Amino acid sequence: MGKIRIGIIGAGRIGRLHAENLSRCIPEANVVAIADVAPQAAEECARDLGIPKTFENPTPIFEDRNVEAILICSSTDTHASLIEQAAEAGKHIFCEKPIALDLEAIDRALEAVKKAEVLLQVGFNRRFDPNFRRAQELVTQGAIGKPHVLQITSRDPEPPPLDYIKVSGGIFLDMTIHDFDMARYMMGEEVEEVYTVGSVLVDPQIGELGDIDTAVVTLKFRSGALGVIDNSRRAVYGYDQRVEVFGEKGTIVVSNPKPDTTVLSDTQGNHTPPLLHFFVERYTDSYIAEMKEFIRCLQSGGEGPVTGFDGKVAVVMGYAAKRSYEEHRPVRLIEIDPGLGL
Amino acid sequence: MGKIRIGIIGAGRIGRLHAENLSRCIPEANVVAIADVAPQAAEECARDLGIPKTFENPTPIFEDRNVEAILICSSTDTHASLIEQAAEAGKHIFCEKPIALDLEAIDRALEAVKKAEVLLQVGFNRRFDPNFRRAQELVTQGAIGKPHVLQITSRDPEPPPLDYIKVSGGIFLDMTIHDFDMARYMMGEEVEEVYTVGSVLVDPQIGELGDIDTAVVTLKFRSGALGVIDNSRRAVYGYDQRVEVFGEKGTIVVSNPKPDTTVLSDTQGNHTPPLLHFFVERYTDSYIAEMKEFIRCLQSGGEGPVTGFDGKVAVVMGYAAKRSYEEHRPVRLIEIDPGLGL
Amino acid sequence: MGKIRIGIIGAGRIGRLHAENLSRCIPEANVVAIADVAPQAAEECARDLGIPKTFENPTPIFEDRNVEAILICSSTDTHASLIEQAAEAGKHIFCEKPIALDLEAIDRALEAVKKAEVLLQVGFNRRFDPNFRRAQELVTQGAIGKPHVLQITSRDPEPPPLDYIKVSGGIFLDMTIHDFDMARYMMGEEVEEVYTVGSVLVDPQIGELGDIDTAVVTLKFRSGALGVIDNSRRAVYGYDQRVEVFGEKGTIVVSNPKPDTTVLSDTQGNHTPPLLHFFVERYTDSYIAEMKEFIRCLQSGGEGPVTGFDGKVAVVMGYAAKRSYEEHRPVRLIEIDPGLGL
Amino acid sequence: MGKIRIGIIGAGRIGRLHAENLSRCIPEANVVAIADVAPQAAEECARDLGIPKTFENPTPIFEDRNVEAILICSSTDTHASLIEQAAEAGKHIFCEKPIALDLEAIDRALEAVKKAEVLLQVGFNRRFDPNFRRAQELVTQGAIGKPHVLQITSRDPEPPPLDYIKVSGGIFLDMTIHDFDMARYMMGEEVEEVYTVGSVLVDPQIGELGDIDTAVVTLKFRSGALGVIDNSRRAVYGYDQRVEVFGEKGTIVVSNPKPDTTVLSDTQGNHTPPLLHFFVERYTDSYIAEMKEFIRCLQSGGEGPVTGFDGKVAVVMGYAAKRSYEEHRPVRLIEIDPGLGL
Repeated sequence: MGKIRIGIIGAGRIGRLHAENLSRCIPEANVVAIADVAPQAAEECARDLGIPKTFENPTPIFEDRNVEAILICSSTDTHASLIEQAAEAGKHIFCEKPIALDLEAIDRALEAVKKAEVLLQVGFNRRFDPNFRRAQELVTQGAIGKPHVLQITSRDPEPPPLDYIKVSGGIFLDMTIHDFDMARYMMGEEVEEVYTVGSVLVDPQIGELGDIDTAVVTLKFRSGALGVIDNSRRAVYGYDQRVEVFGEKGTIVVSNPKPDTTVLSDTQGNHTPPLLHFFVERYTDSYIAEMKEFIRCLQSGGEGPVTGFDGKVAVVMGYAAKRSYEEHRPVRLIEIDPGLGL
Repeated sequence: MGKIRIGIIGAGRIGRLHAENLSRCIPEANVVAIADVAPQAAEECARDLGIPKTFENPTPIFEDRNVEAILICSSTDTHASLIEQAAEAGKHIFCEKPIALDLEAIDRALEAVKKAEVLLQVGFNRRFDPNFRRAQELVTQGAIGKPHVLQITSRDPEPPPLDYIKVSGGIFLDMTIHDFDMARYMMGEEVEEVYTVGSVLVDPQIGELGDIDTAVVTLKFRSGALGVIDNSRRAVYGYDQRVEVFGEKGTIVVSNPKPDTTVLSDTQGNHTPPLLHFFVERYTDSYIAEMKEFIRCLQSGGEGPVTGFDGKVAVVMGYAAKRSYEEHRPVRLIEIDPGLGL
Repeated sequence: MGKIRIGIIGAGRIGRLHAENLSRCIPEANVVAIADVAPQAAEECARDLGIPKTFENPTPIFEDRNVEAILICSSTDTHASLIEQAAEAGKHIFCEKPIALDLEAIDRALEAVKKAEVLLQVGFNRRFDPNFRRAQELVTQGAIGKPHVLQITSRDPEPPPLDYIKVSGGIFLDMTIHDFDMARYMMGEEVEEVYTVGSVLVDPQIGELGDIDTAVVTLKFRSGALGVIDNSRRAVYGYDQRVEVFGEKGTIVVSNPKPDTTVLSDTQGNHTPPLLHFFVERYTDSYIAEMKEFIRCLQSGGEGPVTGFDGKVAVVMGYAAKRSYEEHRPVRLIEIDPGLGL
Repeated sequence: MGKIRIGIIGAGRIGRLHAENLSRCIPEANVVAIADVAPQAAEECARDLGIPKTFENPTPIFEDRNVEAILICSSTDTHASLIEQAAEAGKHIFCEKPIALDLEAIDRALEAVKKAEVLLQVGFNRRFDPNFRRAQELVTQGAIGKPHVLQITSRDPEPPPLDYIKVSGGIFLDMTIHDFDMARYMMGEEVEEVYTVGSVLVDPQIGELGDIDTAVVTLKFRSGALGVIDNSRRAVYGYDQRVEVFGEKGTIVVSNPKPDTTVLSDTQGNHTPPLLHFFVERYTDSYIAEMKEFIRCLQSGGEGPVTGFDGKVAVVMGYAAKRSYEEHRPVRLIEIDPGLGL
């Protein structure tokens, strides 16, 4: 009794990951159903984790009165519509990022959430990484005074498949979007304008699809603070995720966690092992903490740590970065969504 | 089907920790019963983890034909006798360290295990720490050639309660015993002789109980390699657990994992957070890996990664270190157990 | 015999520093005269270091047939004219940066150097820092393959006096100019376009003078590689000078050298001492190496490690960054100097 | 005027190093004469550094009234006698370590120094290393409270020539002697007893000469604090010199300085360059600081930072360590020199 009953839509990599974390690490949650357009994925997950019901179509989950909350882990193009349906069914919602690539669809989804007075938490898991969280707390506590400059280095170990890149919305909406959210999280204020330079240096096929694979995005915050994000689709040495916040009283650097603490010294020098490979390894703890926070909010009420507005702004920033690259000029966020200026 | 059915004796801190790890992280295991002299501890654990049966006395667990393996997590004075009973009942055994403080009792227990042809794994969890494991693999692979000098720094954040110290067997059998096992694990060979210096520097009450709280133990290995262990019962900055293996082709240093990767720089310098507090935080992963390895051995056969002999030698080393301190001279292990010279 | 005879113009901080390094660390050089508009500065330096002649006006140094090379360490507004005079006198020249704030004056000076066929080395000392030098060698050797992204963090511990800022040419020509040269040195190729964001966050009086104190400059290299420089006039934790070159086969990070290797661990965490305060402490070795290289080139011939062209391009980049900030748009270097496009 | 006039006996590696440092870095000193049994060594040094007089025999230096201080940098067997002669001539003395291998000769030399009321500074240069100095200051300031455990790792990159080993007095008097001095310096108190284990693991020829090449020496201080020194004649990865002082309120770790601050990350991991090769590279700064302190003491009076007593105790500790190894038992320092117990 007292456990939060959860239905999951999508049994792919991320859906299954959340299902495992909820089942194994969060006694306060109970996954009661899982749906996937590929029924065997849902069934396999259900069997391994003891989830009682599986569906091909999410409708029965929305209709199940026992289900209190929905995790939306299906493909991006389905997110907004599923949020609307879940909200109309009175379910609380955790939705993977991005909410949608279409800003109007996002607005409709957020409107539905608002009307239904349900919780919506967007899946910016990096906010829950203990390293970034500790840094953000230090910033908030005033350890470095007023922030002046933000640096984010965010490099993937390898590009996604070309078929994925085609539908991804491009590097800014697929990859940098996490960094845009990190920027707002770390600095505690809004970005006013972005400027982008980009190149195709990793794989010419990415360029042929109209996308880029290497980018530097400059941010101007409302307070006058500055920021910079550098992205690459391929860091051969592993998943490279670093943040620095520099301010009037000091600086905080978050470096990459290492897979182990050994140092081998030989005639060639001193050697430590390569970085963790990718997000599943690096952000393991963040995914668990993200779900714990979702469950905690459902139990205690409150707005949730990553709101629908957070989810929307990151998409707006993605479009602004894209337009900046295309038009070769700085772009203000209100050019993308005049409503953000209010 | 196919899950290993396990009974746990002892629902205290370590028993409960193993129960949680088996239930949550090891799908191949099934904890079917737990016993504790304090019935409510067993019941609480059973309720939280869904363990079907609880007992005050372990006998029903030995008698239960469905139980394939036993975890002995009760107080040290009960270990040897429970090993004998478990072996006689044909159960495989995981036993926390030390097997016993009495060498004859250890011999009897190991004899019973041998006779029954069951697996016995002793709870030297640090062997499964990913950092030390990686170092040991590098040594084994020849990364530093022949090892010459071993250094182990092993300091607790605070002394145990005085009531515990009274029955602990003293610092060498309670605390250094882990380091003795680490020494053998890292170097892949046996120690021949030890020499100890010790002092009471942390708490005079520890001295009044006839124990010491600060010690340096020198090791001489059979190959001529040398080793040194330094222990303190109180490192105010946290649980300090480091190892270095120096050899003909290089050196491997294992430093302490940090709780997070932030560095704060201000006018006073650069600051990182304190070490993880104690073994539960530091060795979280090792306890899970230890259980996984136990289950894996039960499934596949084989001798097990920490044998009864390993368990015994560490106790012999503890007595040798103690005698060295008391008699103020180097002590050979065969003085404690002539059988080790064979 | 065989020593290179040198005259120094300017006995201020940097002139004296070079005089000391030449006198104490470079047996192949002989400082034979020093001039300064403040005669007592020249005299004091001469007395301390055993320099035989001092002057208020540099003319006698140009006229002295024994003088083979001149160090120009006077104020920036005198550099170009002194280069011309030195070249006409047939002297080899080391000139502090920048050559001039006026591009036509630079061109005239370089023309004079070319005509006289003397050596001109410009004082971009950071190229001789052993840390950056090692990184540059690794890049050149192909350790990271083709470079993709350059990051330079360059923060002073405190702003210069306001009176200096007034005549400094602004942050880009005074401070970032070093980073522009570092960018070209590390990447081994030319920048095509820059984009700047800047703010007044450190001291509003800097803003009142029409300058800024915090800036992020994005670089686009000809190959498509990207770069970013972040500057602040005040890092309270010390002089912060870091570089990263990320490429197709790896990344090279150059971090700040620490004043000592102690780590203090206490209940509050782990602590290392603050960074070296400023350039005199941080770049001590680079100033010596810079002079050694100048002397070596005089002895062996050759073009010199930092040419007049290098000196000019950094100034062009400074103007491009300034214009980008003022006009709020990306600026190509050929807008500043069409000749660079050749 | 006012410069301290210095004569140097011995123009080998260390004599020349001191001569260079005095000439180049210490304006308050004036090297006026240098003697060496190999005249051309003295002459070459004199020519390079502008030293006016050279001798084969040191007598003229003792007789020169202008000489105020003598540096004894000749072979160990000549030290004690030269100290006596210098003291009798009323000269202040800097003497390389060890004062002598013969304790009675040391006593005679110290007696002569005492009688003549001259300054004697012994060449334990590591006390002047900025890293160890900073650690010692932190200990003295109480940053870690009362020290409990000292760890010194001291490994050479390669053994000296066998011919040198024959006359070196053995590893404890040649190599560990520096660590014995470091132990007293760091802990600020005396060692009461030592225990040694040792092996021949690097080169069997060292064993054939009756020496060892790998050793671990345990120290017991008068306060009850403990210490351990580990030595190897060959660390293939470079000169490894580390110290840790652990105490009631924290710990201070001094690690090896790195030759540069680059980190290269590639598919194999993260790589930093090998350690500095040996003492000339590692302790460059300490040799300069040592001479500065000597000159400062000559100018201001005072006892000097490394006294004759310091020089003697380190030799006593060397003999105690040697006897401990030979007799396979702990040895008290007063067994070697009963006078130390006073």
